[in-house]
Amino acid sequence: MSEATPATAKPAKVLIGAEQLKSLVAGIFAARGARPDDAAAVADTLVWANLRGVDSHGVSRVPRYLELFDKGESVADAVPTVERPRAAIAIVDAHAAPGPVAMIRAADEAIAGARDCGIGWASVRGTVHTGAIGYYASRIADAGMAAVGVVAGVPNMAYAGVKGAAVATSPLAVAVPAGKHQVVLLDMATAVMALGRIAQLKAAGKELPPGVALTAEGEPTTDPALAKVPTPVGGAKGGGMSLVFEMLASGLVGNPIVPSFHSGSKEGRRHRQNGFLLAIDVSAFLPVDEFTATIDDTVDAIKALPPAAGTSEILVPGERGRRTEAERGASGIPLGPKVWRELTEIATSLDVPVPATLS
Amino acid sequence: MSEATPATAKPAKVLIGAEQLKSLVAGIFAARGARPDDAAAVADTLVWANLRGVDSHGVSRVPRYLELFDKGESVADAVPTVERPRAAIAIVDAHAAPGPVAMIRAADEAIAGARDCGIGWASVRGTVHTGAIGYYASRIADAGMAAVGVVAGVPNMAYAGVKGAAVATSPLAVAVPAGKHQVVLLDMATAVMALGRIAQLKAAGKELPPGVALTAEGEPTTDPALAKVPTPVGGAKGGGMSLVFEMLASGLVGNPIVPSFHSGSKEGRRHRQNGFLLAIDVSAFLPVDEFTATIDDTVDAIKALPPAAGTSEILVPGERGRRTEAERGASGIPLGPKVWRELTEIATSLDVPVPATLS
Repeated sequence: MSEATPATAKPAKVLIGAEQLKSLVAGIFAARGARPDDAAAVADTLVWANLRGVDSHGVSRVPRYLELFDKGESVADAVPTVERPRAAIAIVDAHAAPGPVAMIRAADEAIAGARDCGIGWASVRGTVHTGAIGYYASRIADAGMAAVGVVAGVPNMAYAGVKGAAVATSPLAVAVPAGKHQVVLLDMATAVMALGRIAQLKAAGKELPPGVALTAEGEPTTDPALAKVPTPVGGAKGGGMSLVFEMLASGLVGNPIVPSFHSGSKEGRRHRQNGFLLAIDVSAFLPVDEFTATIDDTVDAIKALPPAAGTSEILVPGERGRRTEAERGASGIPLGPKVWRELTEIATSLDVPVPATLS
Repeated sequence: MSEATPATAKPAKVLIGAEQLKSLVAGIFAARGARPDDAAAVADTLVWANLRGVDSHGVSRVPRYLELFDKGESVADAVPTVERPRAAIAIVDAHAAPGPVAMIRAADEAIAGARDCGIGWASVRGTVHTGAIGYYASRIADAGMAAVGVVAGVPNMAYAGVKGAAVATSPLAVAVPAGKHQVVLLDMATAVMALGRIAQLKAAGKELPPGVALTAEGEPTTDPALAKVPTPVGGAKGGGMSLVFEMLASGLVGNPIVPSFHSGSKEGRRHRQNGFLLAIDVSAFLPVDEFTATIDDTVDAIKALPPAAGTSEILVPGERGRRTEAERGASGIPLGPKVWRELTEIATSLDVPVPATLS
């Protein structure tokens, strides 16, 4: 399937402890004007993604946030404001605060609504880069509740019948608390393959698997040089999911991204995101022990099924990430040399101390 | 791609008016003991699916309901009971009432919760065959609200790494009210291709497209004779969606299907479904006109994008179904001769009058 690639030695990765990495990132955000709690929240969210192996949503994004601060498209010390028009719903206006600041506030508002009414919803208006949204769903699950989360952003994905990018790779996260098992955590983009993974294969000159990308003309391709737009899962289904996610996430806060983007105006292409989180207070439905025992039984039943040829173990959503988290939590997070160089250069320029690495 | 098939003449379809078909189906359910309103609700739900071209979820299912009545697995005159443990949530126990009876009640409960709290959730416990769940999401949208719906059932779909059927083709429906445009309605199974469509291709001896089914050994196949289990959209993503849908739909009502099914007991294989509906009261978030204008703009933006080669028109979710509905509403619903024969035989045996057909 893949074309031959030159056998060059890969530059060595840097290994750094999770706490050291959080401290570095929090230091950078604080130095750029974020309040200490907000700086810590952003650091915790990004490093969580690295811990779970989702490096595309981790600390490699720090330079991008700073660029958004420079352009005024994000505001490091913006204070989100909250309206609660009815008992179960909250609207969090991010005022361009970084994603983690707005989304963590939304998670807490959704939890508060659910404690009161059985379920709670929080919409987020006008934030930037929310990162791995499983983080916010997990925060709700840690409060003993089930969670659903969606984020909408600037179009970068195909849609059935359209030539170029039409909708965003809008992710969906669902978290379900279990008993003896860990939280079941689905955290998926509506694209078949993450943009970051396609970029990796392109950089390596490797052929793409069929069905993951289209050319500029809207034709399917496996040629990395011609691949321009990632395709949605299930064709019309994934594109449809992304479109209705945009309608719910952006429509309910009156801040539409898709029509604005396609209007062709410069403002329309500005990076921004909206989202929502739903918290479901399990204890309002049935005794929590009964619920978590059911989830445990369901996990056990799936994992005990006869495996297909070539499969050594059947996994449930979130399981792989949690193993990586345990591993990286114990032995450190590997960062590519480019990411590490960028972070240390930024830190040095801001007089933020650079922690010692493990390798 | 497809193997040669004998060029036999297809038996002629029967064409029948939607109201006539509803009256026939309602008559059958009433004769089998359903209260008149419930009989009409089931008929309306099934004929809605036929009107929209989703014939696999329409009146062809009538014999299956009657079989469930015969076995005592569904109860024609069961009266669902409702608990409202907190202001925004309701639990509808179907007591084995047919899906439409329980789900319509749930839609109305979700709407009531949303009017009160901004959002409303209704879980449904222990119903059978819910049909095309877009019907219930549309009912909520007709009340001016956005809707999300999910149904969980007996495992019949693949899951990453499992050899046979592991999870259900659990559908997701999302309805968003628009202004000048019709309601945007996503109504999708988590399988790549509907079971009914696979069965059609199998019956015709046609090769399946790649990626839609696995063999009994869990290997991908395009051979209709070897295809046993449909595959989920996006591989691990669709299987993960189905699994967390089961956890939310069945777990919150303490009526797990997946572990019970895989326990191997006869009871575990009994047909049953759980589900939930979420209603979002748009007017609690922002003026409804502002919201629907945004949805209209979003629809317009998508439909105006440059089409890919071979595409004459870009569609939004629900658009194709609504066109079929207009067409079939005006000129009648085509039914296969087998379906029509079954319905008329049942009607005759129950002394239910058989309406005149259009052809």
